[in-house]
Amino acid sequence: MINPNSPPPALPDGALRLVALGGIGEIGRNMTVFEHAGRLLVVDCGVLFPEDDQPGVDLILPDFRAIEDRLDDIEAVVLTHGHEDHIGAVPFLLKLRPDVPVVGSRLTLALLAAKCREHRQTPRLVEIGDGERRSFGPYDLEFFPVNHSIPDAVAVAIRTSAGVVLHTGDIKLDQLPLDGRLTDLAGFSRLGDEGVDLFLVDSTNAEVPGFVVPEREIGPVLENVIRKANQRVIVACFASHVHRVQQVLDVAVQYNRRVALVGRSMVRNMGIASELGYLRVPEGLFVDLNEAMDMPEDQVLFVSTGSQGEPLSALSRMARGEHRQISIKAGDTIVLASSLIPGNENAVFGVVNGLARLGATVVHQGNAKVHVSGHSPAGELLFLYNAVRPTNVMPVHGEWRHLRANAALAVATGVDPERVVIAEDGVVVDLIDGKAAISGKVEVGHVYVDGLSVGDVGESTLSDRLVLGEGGFIAITVAVDSTNGRAVAPPTVSGRGFSDDPKALDQAVSLVEMELSRTEAEGITDSHRIAQAVRRVVGRWVAETYRRRPMIVPTIIPVN
Amino acid sequence: MINPNSPPPALPDGALRLVALGGIGEIGRNMTVFEHAGRLLVVDCGVLFPEDDQPGVDLILPDFRAIEDRLDDIEAVVLTHGHEDHIGAVPFLLKLRPDVPVVGSRLTLALLAAKCREHRQTPRLVEIGDGERRSFGPYDLEFFPVNHSIPDAVAVAIRTSAGVVLHTGDIKLDQLPLDGRLTDLAGFSRLGDEGVDLFLVDSTNAEVPGFVVPEREIGPVLENVIRKANQRVIVACFASHVHRVQQVLDVAVQYNRRVALVGRSMVRNMGIASELGYLRVPEGLFVDLNEAMDMPEDQVLFVSTGSQGEPLSALSRMARGEHRQISIKAGDTIVLASSLIPGNENAVFGVVNGLARLGATVVHQGNAKVHVSGHSPAGELLFLYNAVRPTNVMPVHGEWRHLRANAALAVATGVDPERVVIAEDGVVVDLIDGKAAISGKVEVGHVYVDGLSVGDVGESTLSDRLVLGEGGFIAITVAVDSTNGRAVAPPTVSGRGFSDDPKALDQAVSLVEMELSRTEAEGITDSHRIAQAVRRVVGRWVAETYRRRPMIVPTIIPVN
Repeated sequence: MINPNSPPPALPDGALRLVALGGIGEIGRNMTVFEHAGRLLVVDCGVLFPEDDQPGVDLILPDFRAIEDRLDDIEAVVLTHGHEDHIGAVPFLLKLRPDVPVVGSRLTLALLAAKCREHRQTPRLVEIGDGERRSFGPYDLEFFPVNHSIPDAVAVAIRTSAGVVLHTGDIKLDQLPLDGRLTDLAGFSRLGDEGVDLFLVDSTNAEVPGFVVPEREIGPVLENVIRKANQRVIVACFASHVHRVQQVLDVAVQYNRRVALVGRSMVRNMGIASELGYLRVPEGLFVDLNEAMDMPEDQVLFVSTGSQGEPLSALSRMARGEHRQISIKAGDTIVLASSLIPGNENAVFGVVNGLARLGATVVHQGNAKVHVSGHSPAGELLFLYNAVRPTNVMPVHGEWRHLRANAALAVATGVDPERVVIAEDGVVVDLIDGKAAISGKVEVGHVYVDGLSVGDVGESTLSDRLVLGEGGFIAITVAVDSTNGRAVAPPTVSGRGFSDDPKALDQAVSLVEMELSRTEAEGITDSHRIAQAVRRVVGRWVAETYRRRPMIVPTIIPVN
Repeated sequence: MINPNSPPPALPDGALRLVALGGIGEIGRNMTVFEHAGRLLVVDCGVLFPEDDQPGVDLILPDFRAIEDRLDDIEAVVLTHGHEDHIGAVPFLLKLRPDVPVVGSRLTLALLAAKCREHRQTPRLVEIGDGERRSFGPYDLEFFPVNHSIPDAVAVAIRTSAGVVLHTGDIKLDQLPLDGRLTDLAGFSRLGDEGVDLFLVDSTNAEVPGFVVPEREIGPVLENVIRKANQRVIVACFASHVHRVQQVLDVAVQYNRRVALVGRSMVRNMGIASELGYLRVPEGLFVDLNEAMDMPEDQVLFVSTGSQGEPLSALSRMARGEHRQISIKAGDTIVLASSLIPGNENAVFGVVNGLARLGATVVHQGNAKVHVSGHSPAGELLFLYNAVRPTNVMPVHGEWRHLRANAALAVATGVDPERVVIAEDGVVVDLIDGKAAISGKVEVGHVYVDGLSVGDVGESTLSDRLVLGEGGFIAITVAVDSTNGRAVAPPTVSGRGFSDDPKALDQAVSLVEMELSRTEAEGITDSHRIAQAVRRVVGRWVAETYRRRPMIVPTIIPVN
């Protein structure tokens, strides 16, 4: 009998197993591990950006524990495209296994290589082309071109003796893509003819009805905005969205504006993209920021990062009037040609309001069609299911609401509901005799990167940060004679993040003194017990007086 | 010469002055103060709910400082409707001036009275009816019925010898309102014929094109969802949205489900609404929660609070599987018939995902038309401008992006751009000889309510909370002989919210010891200087070792 909450049984010969170490039940840090014939294959290895309840954290990694004893079994890491949530954790995996082959398309690998250089790593790269087929151990891989919000994305078919798996990666079906590179729906149909045993499908937009508007329809909207501008124009978008930037550049050329790139990742990525021919930049179009500042305002256009309201970005600094070089004035035009990632609303609208307050015209998703998504909504997902006609389906890349919506679409196209597997990170799914089913669960947690270290910040530290962030702390320090438990100096009571009023805690001092007299009278000399008594009396007083819940931190220093 | 950043000059005889103490440049805590002939009139007095950068705060009040010396000059407080952001701060104003007349429609005053009872206050209420005209000192007021997402909302015209002001309050133009009570566009036109010198207009949806769908179109969508349900149904919405709840009740009656109200404010407000006849509840429809739990699941429907993902709400607890009475199972239906207030996305989608994970079908704004806004979008605002034909316009109720969008609409209908005044909280606007213009500025800050006290939590405490919430703190405690600066016990170094690793700070102890030897050798005995030295050495070590920025908190206890 299978227990879905225990580690799975040994994998039967000839079967295929998969488990997501990140990216299912959440959006981000995508990483799926396949096991077949004793060998592993990893698809994607990305990071997740933290949310409100993970304060102070820089990045969240997939949890490698499930494979840490089997690193040598990994045949390859396949990257479907170059976004951070698909490649960002590769350097952390390479630290554990530096020589693993990393497989991907040209732009994907170029972006990965740049990232690895920052980590002083030289990965073993294996470039593949559209339609190419290549084996790694028992895995026979075929790569299909797909559209997404970055060029050169691929879906991957994995042929094994257990069956054929198709993983979409991130996908959409733009029928008029800017680079003419269509999602290979015909290839999917051909694979469907051959028989797809398990279809892993991007769920991000499964709740959204309909179809994505072609990326190329953004161009005319941008043109309309930029044509009317007679002062400074700043367009912010994702630093990897080559086609969006291409359209901005095209409009700049049309209206005789030169272009300055703002933001480290924008400069880096567009450098790579133009070098490899993904971005067409007319000779002399780019100008550096300092030079741009000396040019007439109607002859320059800035392409910037910061579209998600990142507080340290150039755009946020401009909105606060704190940018060293660019100060926004009435009549300037700013375009946020980007999505609004849930959770970033306050930050993004803070930037929009700051710019509006300075008198700028701010064009964004909410008031103009300056963004289209990179993920297939429901209408397109139906096309995919009908092309592939899979036997088993597993929605990936999504929170629970997206997974459920995607599963319903699969069923609507005729997939047996019993063959639609909704799993989340750590849930092990086995494909045995052509049927996919949950076989168990491995432990998968959040691995936090905070500053230089990985993993030492965990749930208990985060829970302390949440308490401190809500209510601050009150520290009570007492030096106590360890022989008799008598305080050798008056107690110090101080708070941070508790009150602006310097006298707020005065009353607590006498309460602590009374409590110390009591503990001394009772002959209590143990620091820990004294600390507990002090915490209790101060905690109760604060709750009654203020109805607040700061962290109470007593420190008893034993002297003598 | 007017300096827009200084307090305004004395108001000329016969002129009218106004200043928002909250609600402009932000959405929430609406409060506008008018001054004329030496007397004051207050329109609305609401609260604002805190955002991410105001952690731990319960409420934010308008800043009363500008009027605290003139409380006796207030003729009346006019409430346009019963939402918290319009009435929530009244009890705090009543503490300063208990006998001020509070003017509003029947439901508005009933909701206020209930709130005041919780504060043990008995306000002086002055009920007005639709179309009624009534004077308070030099202010001749007329009340116009308007639609909003709560019944009984009004706009107020303020006639003075300086001119006529029309304040929309929160407004929309539902042409098929559920209660048949239309926004009095004809009345606005008549007032426009008379001449409106200054028009204060709700900006909330000014960026949104078009028109609001009638509230009554929600009913059939709810019906469609509830008809198909054969298990438990829970509908969450705002606790003051009487018409939304009415439609839920109507569908419940239709499908033979009895209704249990969940959540303190839902029970209280619907009690008031049904008692006053705003909510029609068939005899025997309501059932209490305990009784509902014993009924067959397809014969009951729950109407609940918690639509914004409030972590302590019943719905959030159900989503986490922690509700004492209701446990969600596969096949249950949950409807979030509510807006998604920016900033609440993570919380709301957290609830949706939690419910989806448990197997429930979750219907929300993103996948069905179960919500319409209570505020006029651009198309409706044009109708308002064209009806009123104001001489001067001041957009209110909005962040900067909304104010700018609303101003553009005013100009598009022919209002002189010079007569469109964009102000924010604290900016003083005078209407002199028929022209409105900024005359100065008074200080307006955020007044925080945290637990039982008002105002003792200010910007410095919040900034400490933000630092603590991001990085925790490291406390270093040393008892030092005050005569010679020698440590009398080893230093204690401990951190909270810094690391899960108990040994993370071990190395810092020896660094502190070395630093103390140095300060002792230099003859430093002053606690403050020793603390600074310790903070510096620990801060530098943490930055280099971890690249993190916890708060460093040294405490030096002088003994002897």
